[in-house]
Parts: sequence; structure tokens; C-alpha cells
Amino acid sequence: MRRGCFISVEGIDGSGKSTHIKFIQQLLEASGKTVTVTREPGGTMLGEQIREILLTPRSESISANTELLLIFAARIEHVQKIISPSLAAGKWVLCERFTDASYAYQGGGRGLPLSDISILENWALGCFHPDLTLIFDLPASVGMKRALVRSQQLDRFEQESVDFVDRVRMAYLSLAKNNLKRYCLIDASLSLVEIQQAIQREITPFLEIHLHV
Amino acid sequence: MRRGCFISVEGIDGSGKSTHIKFIQQLLEASGKTVTVTREPGGTMLGEQIREILLTPRSESISANTELLLIFAARIEHVQKIISPSLAAGKWVLCERFTDASYAYQGGGRGLPLSDISILENWALGCFHPDLTLIFDLPASVGMKRALVRSQQLDRFEQESVDFVDRVRMAYLSLAKNNLKRYCLIDASLSLVEIQQAIQREITPFLEIHLHV
Repeated sequence: MRRGCFISVEGIDGSGKSTHIKFIQQLLEASGKTVTVTREPGGTMLGEQIREILLTPRSESISANTELLLIFAARIEHVQKIISPSLAAGKWVLCERFTDASYAYQGGGRGLPLSDISILENWALGCFHPDLTLIFDLPASVGMKRALVRSQQLDRFEQESVDFVDRVRMAYLSLAKNNLKRYCLIDASLSLVEIQQAIQREITPFLEIHLHV
Repeated sequence: MRRGCFISVEGIDGSGKSTHIKFIQQLLEASGKTVTVTREPGGTMLGEQIREILLTPRSESISANTELLLIFAARIEHVQKIISPSLAAGKWVLCERFTDASYAYQGGGRGLPLSDISILENWALGCFHPDLTLIFDLPASVGMKRALVRSQQLDRFEQESVDFVDRVRMAYLSLAKNNLKRYCLIDASLSLVEIQQAIQREITPFLEIHLHV
């Protein structure tokens, strides 16, 4: 069966993921790919309901384990209903956040053992993961300032401390360092033009390798 | 630390769980116990939101894995916020449905491998389980008729086929058969008086063993 490629885009809030995804989509489409753009948590009706539960600030706390189960519940639906069918139809999938975000936010941020996340990942998805992951890296304080300017009201994750966001960032950097093959780290503090050049430098060879996909 | 006992009540829809829980509560309170009565899915604010997602009939299907993750997400919150604090305070907890319902509904009903449920149970709860579980047993068709009379509108589980409910029942029977120590099987097709006598026969010796709890 002809199969498209699955690219995920990661980074802390304010790292410019949504903007850069549009540019990546243009690059892929210019190469003749049909692209499904999607995001986590969300992507399906159930996923958006779970997104609402996860992001809405609330008076009662939610444990990190609970948060992770909810995210994987949304993720299974997302894979089964959107990502896998798109790939099977030969489309390329461009997704804002995927399992790496769980390692970064619930692992790095909330302090859940990475082995616990790994058990759940394996339970829920087997070995299904993106073919390429672009991580937009930015100091926590800079990302938070940008997110603050953008948001009308900060969501449950945006309300976290700079220490939390810094731990998320460090977890992303650690993922990138330990798997050079799948991850591309891009400095999101550069100018837009420089970032787009960096994206192009990563996407062009990937497109060449997957020319006939 | 003084610790109360945790009793769960299980059975298919229409098996009379809510009615019988009130009677069990009376028995416990007559013995001087302070009782927390609760239910699954639900019990916390987040749990009730998840209950709503799980029970509302919807046009898109939800996979059995997703359903199970949502139920365990609600269950972790339930244990951390309601059940464990009550037990630690020396109260007794009487809960309508707990993890056994996952083995019955997502295992028996939806066909998920029991080993998958067991991995998730262990991930989410370790070895935390009720001290005593009463299973109210009834043929699927009888339970469904009773649930139909009671409900204004059937929920997502009540809309399932008689075959589904029968598989749920069989899974409950199999649980009871394989662990005679924790489970008490009660014939819910008997008259109310006979059922209450059966409950009393199970609860009285349990209370005697746990007199000073």
C-alpha cells in the first residue's frame, strides 16, 4: 500500500509552531504532496472534548497520570481516525505535537518517569511514531512572553511557571540529542527568514529521500 | 493509620446495584461505620466530565482502547480524591463499579485482551483493589428489560446488543469463579427480600472480621 510520511512539529508555547507549520505545508505542497494538517490534543470530535478538559483552567488539580491517560485517549482516536487513514491514502501528515510532547510535558514538566510514559506509549500505539520531528527550540522566558502577547486568556499549561516550561524545553533537547536521526532541532529565536531557511535545509533532503512516497 | 474497608458493587445494567447499595449502606451504618457512597465512572468533577463523554451516544465510534484509557483516567482521580482519603480517614467506601467493570465491559463486552487491561490497571493503580466485591448476577435480557423501563433515554452502553451484555455478564461470572475470596455472587433475579437476605449473609461475616476497622 502506498504510504505518505508523518511529520510532527514540537516546541514550547510561543515557539512559532503554527506559523512554521504553514510554511512546511507550502514546501510539501510545492513538491506535489497532498497534506493533512492536524494538531494535538484534538483532531477528532472526542479529541477536542479532551482538549477542552485538559486546557481549561480548573479549581481542582489533575494528577500527571490522569493527564497522560487523557492525552493518550485522544491520541489513539487521532491516529485511528485521522493520521493512519491519511497516510494509507498516500497523503502526508503534518501534526502540531505528538507523543514527544508527552515526554516533554508530562515527563519533563510534570516529572513522570519516562519509563511510565514509554509503557503507555507502547500500550496505546505500539511502535507508531513520526518519520520526522522538527523541534523549535526557544528559551522558556522568551516563549512565555510570546504566548502571553498572543493569548486572550492563558490555558492550564500556559499558566505554568517558567521552571515548568524550562523543564519541558530541556526534555525536548534531550530527546533530540538522543535520536539525531528522527529529530531536527531548529533555533526558534532566529529571524523568520533564518528559521524558514533552516526548515528548508531539513525538509528538502527529506523530500528527496521520499520523492516517490 | 486507621483504615476503612473498600466494598464495590458490580453487575450489568438493570441488576439493581443502586437499590442494593442503599441497603448495604444501612447495614454498615447500623454497625457504626461512616460510609462514603460513590460511583464510576464519575465521583469527581473531572470524572463526571469523562462520564458524560463515555455515556452520551455519539455518531463517531470510540475505540475500546480509548474507552479504557478514559475510564482509568477518571478512576485515578476517583481513587486519589475520594476513595483513598475516605479510607485513610477510617471511613468505609461503597462504590458502584470499579476496575472489575473494565474487565467485564471492555474485556468481555468489547473483546479487549484481559492482559491489556491488567497492564493498564497495574500502570494506573498498582495493586489497589476493593476488599470485597458483590456481583449482582442477572440474565442479560432481564437486565436490559429493567434498564429500558427505568431510562428516559438509553446511554451508549445501554444501547448495546443483548450479546454484548451477555459477554459482560459472563466476564463477571468468570471473575467471581476465579477469585472466590474477594467476590460474592448474588442472584439478582430473586425477590428483593431474598436478595437482601443474601446481601446480609455476605456482609455480616465481613463486618465481624473487620469489626475494629
